[in-house]
Amino acid sequence: MPVGEAIFTQRAIRRLKPDPIDDADLEILLAAAARAPSGGNRQPWRFLVVRDQKLKDQLAEWYVDAYWARRRERGFSGPEAIPKDDSSGQAALHFSTNPENYARAPVLLFVIAEYKGADIAAACQNLMLAARALGIGSTITSIGGIHEADVHRLLGIPDGMDASCCIPIGWPEGKFGPAQRKPLREVAFLDHFGAAGPWSSD
Amino acid sequence: MPVGEAIFTQRAIRRLKPDPIDDADLEILLAAAARAPSGGNRQPWRFLVVRDQKLKDQLAEWYVDAYWARRRERGFSGPEAIPKDDSSGQAALHFSTNPENYARAPVLLFVIAEYKGADIAAACQNLMLAARALGIGSTITSIGGIHEADVHRLLGIPDGMDASCCIPIGWPEGKFGPAQRKPLREVAFLDHFGAAGPWSSD
Repeated sequence: MPVGEAIFTQRAIRRLKPDPIDDADLEILLAAAARAPSGGNRQPWRFLVVRDQKLKDQLAEWYVDAYWARRRERGFSGPEAIPKDDSSGQAALHFSTNPENYARAPVLLFVIAEYKGADIAAACQNLMLAARALGIGSTITSIGGIHEADVHRLLGIPDGMDASCCIPIGWPEGKFGPAQRKPLREVAFLDHFGAAGPWSSD
Repeated sequence: MPVGEAIFTQRAIRRLKPDPIDDADLEILLAAAARAPSGGNRQPWRFLVVRDQKLKDQLAEWYVDAYWARRRERGFSGPEAIPKDDSSGQAALHFSTNPENYARAPVLLFVIAEYKGADIAAACQNLMLAARALGIGSTITSIGGIHEADVHRLLGIPDGMDASCCIPIGWPEGKFGPAQRKPLREVAFLDHFGAAGPWSSD
């Protein structure tokens, strides 16, 4: 698949079939992630593929728990408090209201930062673009906060590392397609912040 | 260009021809960057394309200055103190020892974080993969630190935003090709941190 098609049709996919991702596909995703650039080529990441169903079930419970703990901190008491026009919040309900939906992903793929603040986003993006190219759905989720220590203990992750980024991957039930983004003229400028560039309006 | 080829042949390109990047190519890079995923779809980025030579000359001086200020903080007095086996440090010398090499890039492209700590890395990676697909070279550099306020003033960047990420882009003098990375077995595990997965040794 051309780079452009992958980039322009990437979107968060949460409705996943339980069908397995085979080893060869998984290796492509991991190899793509591991090729990402990093400052000083430090490659400050580790990848942990979780396929074991018991582990996934436990992680899914913690995911839902940690999600609502973060939401409550921001004043949202539960699903009914998420505004209808918060499309990201609404979409996240598929995972956050039902641990079975989360545990159903054939793979929970942790992208672990070697230390808090290490920049792992380029690795995540390579992984998700490679997934898109293979037709595999993904989205970044977070199991941090109140269950951080639990996750570390369950999976044997060393202290000091940050395992809060977890990417459920699987074959999509829905479709890929362009996601909603701000028009280019609102975010891209020429030679001075706020100055319009020669690009078209979108 | 297929996603896989772009990902597996992406590398930092610093030796750039001064030839211009045309508007259509630039728009593709910006549109690709602006498609990147972000938490809650907040898209916490702005893009500032600097083509004006006087601006670039000034920014290049500050880049070199800020680079060595950071290096001195870590105990490196100058170019001769960078270890010969520090391949990233050695490669960076092309920019860091000569502002003209930096200012020679036809475009200095700032990926500005809406606030300190906003995650802009997926946008940067989309931009650089789209560049790779078009044959355009790029690498992430930083003009932060001692010249942060100067950069903001020169380019009209609002207080509170973070403009430390600057990507010089241009047509490469050298070649693309695979970069050096750790073998997969050292960074990717199955079901427990440190446990080998079914992937081959590299």
